[in-house]
Parts: sequence; structure tokens; C-alpha cells
Amino acid sequence: MSVTDELLANNAAYVEQFTGPLPLPPSKHVAVVACMDARLDVYRVLGLNEGEAHVIRNAGGVVTEDEIRSLAISQRLLGTKEIILIHHTDCGMLTFTDDEFKRSIQDEVGVKPPWAAESFKDLDEDVRQSIGRIRNSPYVPVKDSIRGFVFDVATGKLTEVA
Amino acid sequence: MSVTDELLANNAAYVEQFTGPLPLPPSKHVAVVACMDARLDVYRVLGLNEGEAHVIRNAGGVVTEDEIRSLAISQRLLGTKEIILIHHTDCGMLTFTDDEFKRSIQDEVGVKPPWAAESFKDLDEDVRQSIGRIRNSPYVPVKDSIRGFVFDVATGKLTEVA
Repeated sequence: MSVTDELLANNAAYVEQFTGPLPLPPSKHVAVVACMDARLDVYRVLGLNEGEAHVIRNAGGVVTEDEIRSLAISQRLLGTKEIILIHHTDCGMLTFTDDEFKRSIQDEVGVKPPWAAESFKDLDEDVRQSIGRIRNSPYVPVKDSIRGFVFDVATGKLTEVA
Repeated sequence: MSVTDELLANNAAYVEQFTGPLPLPPSKHVAVVACMDARLDVYRVLGLNEGEAHVIRNAGGVVTEDEIRSLAISQRLLGTKEIILIHHTDCGMLTFTDDEFKRSIQDEVGVKPPWAAESFKDLDEDVRQSIGRIRNSPYVPVKDSIRGFVFDVATGKLTEVA
């Protein structure tokens, strides 16, 4: 049995105790942008329940064009007003450089990705970079509360980046 | 108190019962790509525990360049092998067109986004589109198990898209 089949079997148990449906717009009017890291269960870390917040995730929790797209839709069409950014300790993005990652792909498949891999060397600095990218975008209208945090994978604690 | 402050207070309770740290690579070698929708708690829907799977999310659960970047890092650097795609019923992406959304932004702020909004009219078709984009990418190496599902927000059930 594949892992996918195993997770589908888990879904049957979820259905048994499901109590929805809930409304489409997030009831707490918050959008979270976080790293895809497996150890970062955003709902549990923030005590969120189903229906309360949009959750946007990618490698690093960085802000690229696709996160601006998602935040624009989140705020303009679904009414979110606060943004929470979450990077974390022991992140894979700290372990390589864009140059070496893209070179390894080029060597293997013959073409170099036309995108930045978005690796970084400093967690706090990259959180501030992500906040800056949102602040710089004309497409995200509500910028009153954009706050950035680092999640400690050893303790579960969020620390705000000054 | 802002919602962000309220969620930070929740984090203190999470820290109290935290039992990490866990290893960096996802132990089930799976990456999930899902919509950012607030009602879709990916860990609960699939019965995932912390540390088991990468979770990538955006508006629609669509595959753009940033999801290819995340999947490339997930597979090449962190060893995931299976991909699960999840769209869902009652999705906001079904409620507008790219043309009207981008026109409304242009009318308000004076510049039209250079990106596609990625709205769609058919859930199953868009899941297949997302699978196709991954299959077409030279940067995602492992394509043996790429399966797509629609999550029913009324029942909690995942249905595989043929």
C-alpha cells in the first residue's frame, strides 16, 4: 500500500467525526504564510480551528509572485486583514545556495530553472525580506498588521522578528 | 487585542505540550499541494502527524512556478517521492474570472498584475491541469505517484479525480 493510500484510509476516520460545512471566508480574517516544513503544523502551532485562517505555504515560507497572488485573492475577495509570516529553525533553505542547487539540476536534466530557488542564510533577515516584499506590492491592499515570526522546531515556540 | 496576538497566546499552550524536535526530512516521503482554504486542515484531513509530509498551499491549490520550486526542493533535497494534490468544493477560485479580478486591481491601483490569477471553472479539470503541469516539468524528478483529489467541504471526504 502506498503512503497516499494509507492517508486516504485516514480520511475515512476524519469523515466520521466531521461537523461542517463552514462558510468560505476565514472567520478570523487572517492569512498565514509559512514554510512547507513537515514539523510545522500551522493549525496546531497557532491554535487555529477549521474555517478561521487562510494558510499559504511553500519551500521556506518566502514571498514570491505566487504568494502575492494568494494574498491579493485572500484580502480582496475573502476579506482577510492580518498577515502572519512564519519561518523556522533548522530550515532546509539554510543548507544550500541557489547557484549550487540550480547547477545540480542543470547538470542532471540539461536545463537550468528560470526561477530563484530562494535559499537564505539568515532566518530573521529573510522574514524581514518577506515582509518587505509584501509592503512593496501594490496588489496587497491591507498592510496594517504584517508580522513575522521564527518557529523553533525544538520547543514549538514562535518568536517575533523585530 | 489583534487576532495575531490571540493566536500567539494560543502558541504558549502549544509549547506546553510540545514533544519535538523531529528530523528535517518528511518521514512519510510525501508532499501535499492544497488550496489555502481555511476549512481544509491538511494534517487532520489526511491524519498526518508533525514531521510526516511537506505541505504546500496557495489560492486554489494550483501549480505555478513556485509550487514547482517547492516540489523540486522537496524531492531533490528532502527525499519526498509521492505527491498529493487537493482542490475542494465551494472554492473561491470558481467565483471570478482572471480578467475581471485583474481589471478590478488595475482600476483601483493603476497597474495590472503581470501574473495569472489562476481562477478556474471546473474542479476536476483543474486538478488534472495541476497534475499535467507537474508531469511537464523537468525539475520535479519523481513522477511515479502524483494523485489528485477534491475535498468536499460539506462532508470532509476526499474523492480521487480520475
